[in-house]
Amino acid sequence: MAHKILDKIQLPSDRFEMRLSGSGGQGMIFASVVLSKAIGMNSNKSVVQSQSYGPEARGGASKADVVVSDNEIYYPKAMKLDLLLAMTQEALDKYYPDLKENGMLIVDSSLVHNVPDVEHYAFEFTHMARNQIGHIMVANVIALGAIAALTGLVTKEKLTEIVLQHAPRGTEEKNRNAVELGYNEALKAKK
Amino acid sequence: MAHKILDKIQLPSDRFEMRLSGSGGQGMIFASVVLSKAIGMNSNKSVVQSQSYGPEARGGASKADVVVSDNEIYYPKAMKLDLLLAMTQEALDKYYPDLKENGMLIVDSSLVHNVPDVEHYAFEFTHMARNQIGHIMVANVIALGAIAALTGLVTKEKLTEIVLQHAPRGTEEKNRNAVELGYNEALKAKK
Repeated sequence: MAHKILDKIQLPSDRFEMRLSGSGGQGMIFASVVLSKAIGMNSNKSVVQSQSYGPEARGGASKADVVVSDNEIYYPKAMKLDLLLAMTQEALDKYYPDLKENGMLIVDSSLVHNVPDVEHYAFEFTHMARNQIGHIMVANVIALGAIAALTGLVTKEKLTEIVLQHAPRGTEEKNRNAVELGYNEALKAKK
Repeated sequence: MAHKILDKIQLPSDRFEMRLSGSGGQGMIFASVVLSKAIGMNSNKSVVQSQSYGPEARGGASKADVVVSDNEIYYPKAMKLDLLLAMTQEALDKYYPDLKENGMLIVDSSLVHNVPDVEHYAFEFTHMARNQIGHIMVANVIALGAIAALTGLVTKEKLTEIVLQHAPRGTEEKNRNAVELGYNEALKAKK
């Protein structure tokens, strides 16, 4: 069940590339570190998480990459994305060309309104964070819950555990609810 | 002046590899992200920051890598380190073999007592954090200040700016003092 989508997008057995993208303040690095750790510490998969800075990385869109493989990863740079999360229109426009044909596209439809005419998932991560959790800063964690449900790369429980390890003190309940919300919404939407 | 050490260790014009290593709770990823951003946003250099998870990355020592280059970085994995920061003995023992001959070795002498017989820098980052700043969690930021002074890759001011952008609210003064302390101690020790 959890691997249905992965089969559909023809996950190569040895490599799965994800990019979490948005604007600078949306916590894409935090989300990528947490996701990588949750996958890498609970499976036999290798995971490399990376981000770039410098002239070619400047501009409003920020990204953080996660490469997952059954084998040791010798080349850690994401090249053709199996999954793209775009939390802003600018991030979508910038990184959509890097998505594989039939790769999984997930957008925050609170902020992204112009999506290419391909099959994709749309969730109102930012609205959900503000209205259902009460803190806009957990939109990234809601998105992580959705990614867990859609890819099956990590269980909800393991993801929650690592989110809580890294969340600031006092935000535990909001973060736990954020994972739960994203996971459940994505299960409902899952094709 | 700032480049004296770099010249000494024969920095290749196109690539400088750093590894910040310690135990899981010492904030090596945070430090690496901040360092990468501070360098990458304030120069024409490209920077890639990465960490690995999975079977080959398990164990007590954690690491986060930073690769800096004058050109776009096509191969972002650190291979032969130009600089190794080791905040624990286990991290030093594990990663010292990856340091280049004449690479810059920086250890936290609060926790590392058995150092190979090579020229290196020793600072009591953890003791300084506890005794001079009043918060053990800024040992990593003191180390960043030292790295800035020893490599000249980023100014104290720019480093402070990025540290403060990412530091939890309420910790600004401690973090500012931590950069200052590490920077000044390293200037004194600089060979």
